Amino acid sequence: MAAGRPLRVTIWNEHVHEQRQASVRKIYPEGMHAPIAEGIRRELGDGVSVRVATLEEPEHGLTEGALAETDVLTWWGHAAHDQVADEVVERVHARVLAGMGIVLLHSAHYSKIFKRLMGTTCSLRWRSDPGGEREVIWTVNPAHPIAAGVPQPIVVPHDEMYGEYFDIPTPDDLVFISSYEGGEVFRSGCVYRRGLGRVVYFSPGDQEYPVYHQPEIQRVIANCVAWCGEAGRANDTPSTRQGNSPRNWYM
Amino acid sequence: MAAGRPLRVTIWNEHVHEQRQASVRKIYPEGMHAPIAEGIRRELGDGVSVRVATLEEPEHGLTEGALAETDVLTWWGHAAHDQVADEVVERVHARVLAGMGIVLLHSAHYSKIFKRLMGTTCSLRWRSDPGGEREVIWTVNPAHPIAAGVPQPIVVPHDEMYGEYFDIPTPDDLVFISSYEGGEVFRSGCVYRRGLGRVVYFSPGDQEYPVYHQPEIQRVIANCVAWCGEAGRANDTPSTRQGNSPRNWYM
Amino acid sequence: MAAGRPLRVTIWNEHVHEQRQASVRKIYPEGMHAPIAEGIRRELGDGVSVRVATLEEPEHGLTEGALAETDVLTWWGHAAHDQVADEVVERVHARVLAGMGIVLLHSAHYSKIFKRLMGTTCSLRWRSDPGGEREVIWTVNPAHPIAAGVPQPIVVPHDEMYGEYFDIPTPDDLVFISSYEGGEVFRSGCVYRRGLGRVVYFSPGDQEYPVYHQPEIQRVIANCVAWCGEAGRANDTPSTRQGNSPRNWYM
Amino acid sequence: MAAGRPLRVTIWNEHVHEQRQASVRKIYPEGMHAPIAEGIRRELGDGVSVRVATLEEPEHGLTEGALAETDVLTWWGHAAHDQVADEVVERVHARVLAGMGIVLLHSAHYSKIFKRLMGTTCSLRWRSDPGGEREVIWTVNPAHPIAAGVPQPIVVPHDEMYGEYFDIPTPDDLVFISSYEGGEVFRSGCVYRRGLGRVVYFSPGDQEYPVYHQPEIQRVIANCVAWCGEAGRANDTPSTRQGNSPRNWYM
Repeated sequence: MAAGRPLRVTIWNEHVHEQRQASVRKIYPEGMHAPIAEGIRRELGDGVSVRVATLEEPEHGLTEGALAETDVLTWWGHAAHDQVADEVVERVHARVLAGMGIVLLHSAHYSKIFKRLMGTTCSLRWRSDPGGEREVIWTVNPAHPIAAGVPQPIVVPHDEMYGEYFDIPTPDDLVFISSYEGGEVFRSGCVYRRGLGRVVYFSPGDQEYPVYHQPEIQRVIANCVAWCGEAGRANDTPSTRQGNSPRNWYM
Repeated sequence: MAAGRPLRVTIWNEHVHEQRQASVRKIYPEGMHAPIAEGIRRELGDGVSVRVATLEEPEHGLTEGALAETDVLTWWGHAAHDQVADEVVERVHARVLAGMGIVLLHSAHYSKIFKRLMGTTCSLRWRSDPGGEREVIWTVNPAHPIAAGVPQPIVVPHDEMYGEYFDIPTPDDLVFISSYEGGEVFRSGCVYRRGLGRVVYFSPGDQEYPVYHQPEIQRVIANCVAWCGEAGRANDTPSTRQGNSPRNWYM
Repeated sequence: MAAGRPLRVTIWNEHVHEQRQASVRKIYPEGMHAPIAEGIRRELGDGVSVRVATLEEPEHGLTEGALAETDVLTWWGHAAHDQVADEVVERVHARVLAGMGIVLLHSAHYSKIFKRLMGTTCSLRWRSDPGGEREVIWTVNPAHPIAAGVPQPIVVPHDEMYGEYFDIPTPDDLVFISSYEGGEVFRSGCVYRRGLGRVVYFSPGDQEYPVYHQPEIQRVIANCVAWCGEAGRANDTPSTRQGNSPRNWYM
Repeated sequence: MAAGRPLRVTIWNEHVHEQRQASVRKIYPEGMHAPIAEGIRRELGDGVSVRVATLEEPEHGLTEGALAETDVLTWWGHAAHDQVADEVVERVHARVLAGMGIVLLHSAHYSKIFKRLMGTTCSLRWRSDPGGEREVIWTVNPAHPIAAGVPQPIVVPHDEMYGEYFDIPTPDDLVFISSYEGGEVFRSGCVYRRGLGRVVYFSPGDQEYPVYHQPEIQRVIANCVAWCGEAGRANDTPSTRQGNSPRNWYM
């Protein structure tokens, strides 16, 4: 709880699979956002205030006002990327550049906002075999705050395979690499700065498996939220002032 | 001249200032693209074939066919960024991700294509005092090919000041840093990979000063062209194949 | 004050110039370490406990015990780099890799410990004109914690010029770039991770000028200390366990 | 064959296992350096001249004269790292910083020269099960020249497992990541610049398996040699001149 108030987190969930597919609803009866929120609250306690927003709300729950009061946004989407309004995407994008943190989860690699931030296709290799396969998540930067307090490795018993080549810009920091039973590897924890905002992509979490109920995964997400939340609060905007500058303006 | 044929370069120039302003036309009577082309030809000789394209041509001279036959595109724009058709920008973007190199010059920091590739505002500080001021360009990565054969430092007698904070992603490699008489600094040579393509931003070159006639600046641009052109030719596309992949597809 | 106890900081000062040269003693009558300590205490308050160590102490004040109780070490040296015992350098090196932060100041670019950590010559260009010259320090990564709360730019009225090419590995993050009246530039705030430890090099601070009395400079150093101190405390060592590993050791 | 003469490559092989162990001699009857040299010659043809040097030669075959005529050095060592003379290590180190490329293979991660260049412990996780296990090597930077022309993935039927955490500085570019049957991952193709020299670490190649007979592995090593060799030839040394610099020295 820096700067005298809790970190304000908005958990954004597309919330489509849970309503459409019994198999997903069984795993996440209250929506995937429920265990994500629970994990963040457990790990960060009084340091955080959490709200949830979903696709079906007006402006997807991401109005100017809501974003102005959000320090960190987490994002899960898959079936309905195209239904996210471009205007909302531009609004989120501007807030990230102005210092809001954003944590993109799993199939959010193909969300409009991630592609907008990255400037690449963000395509990857995947395998949707029924039952999934074991994912083993390795920390390759043990001094990075998003890896704090997690075991080496984290084992996810069943997840969808995501494999290289993952078409993203080279991360500012690569923190996690996953392997799968099929032998594929994936850069599963990637960190970027864009403008004043911090961006994390963390790949585990297919809707068909109870990944977000797993405490180690919840811990990583909480770490991501805490770390992404630092930037927007620590900085004094003057250092980024731009535009026409007369000679000796700073003297 | 790798792979048995010359590197195919398209020099794109907005070509608006030269037609509108006598002061610019005096410096660049045949257009700014003329000395840029001349420098590339002088430095790369038979290894390169150069063509020019401008805003006023149909599809700005950047048709599907033209781009398919371009290994490296250089880009200068300023007054008319908004007149570049979004469709053409998307086409250039796709070609870069597929391996075409792109070299963005000076005020192209605000071009649609650069902002699209970067995902940030690309804003900066500037000063348009008449007469400009001395820019001194320092190599901070002397082993990078785009710095080959240039003096340390390069002195540009008169240029427009471009200063930090420059709102770009952290470069994959930072090669040049400029200082100005007013004391500002600027990351003036920035290198990125996006998909299979290489991207360079090189900042000197305000239209009011004869910067592109300067041999050291021409040499850097030729270096950028040669280096950006490597990627698209060296690679075998199979390594980036993506999509649904059955277990043991690679065995 | 994370993890329930203050961050333990050791300020290491060669403390030779202050004793030998009246001009330096006049600026730093209680040693250069005094204003450095004062600034850290003012900025970090109860979150920090500060001690000082100097070259002339047994083992330079950096015994195994002292280092074991140090979370972050700051280092200033110049005239007597060679008098630092190799054994102490190896000890400090090992502690950094195990998670201690280290902040290297000004002429510490040529210290044994910095060269040991970097693996390069760490040479640079300099100018020791009497009176020095104005240094202007620009933030190029405004979201980095070591730049928090400092003006853009910081102006140091008189400092020794340090210029490129600075022979260091490419920083993991480049946060500050300085310019000088003579037109040179310098990567003046460079951040690295080595093992579990964080490393910052921050260049202002020639002994002939009152640079460490300047509140903005003190603020940056305090930021560096706070940031470097995070890593050693946040991490669980298991994630770095190494060595011979039987199949399925982690299952 | 840039700059009018072939690239001069020295293949350094400890050459101890081949002489001591029948199992290794059977795989590499003429020494491990033989297929490494063969692959480089096949891929680079007239563009390269190759010589071999081994531990048992005077000064390990790495005299001042030999290094002065080497553009790229490849290094394989394992059983006898400690027998490499410190003086030779310092000599190689200085040559790398002055522009010689170096390609470190497999167990060379623990060589004196690699640790000297990296400044970290370079420790890792390993598994020496008889028979080894399948290693699958994935390209994560398909535009990098060292990945040119290799399949995605490269499958090595039997190799020793090398796993994370690998205690190295964050690479300037990460090009390959390997997975193993046991589920471990490893950053197997890492690229650095140190001074004017380029450094590649490429991990496949345990002495118990015929890894260096595999054409794809030979191709990667040839790519590394070609890429590392560029730097020393392309650069003009003036850009790195350092030391005391009077005001306006460059005007």
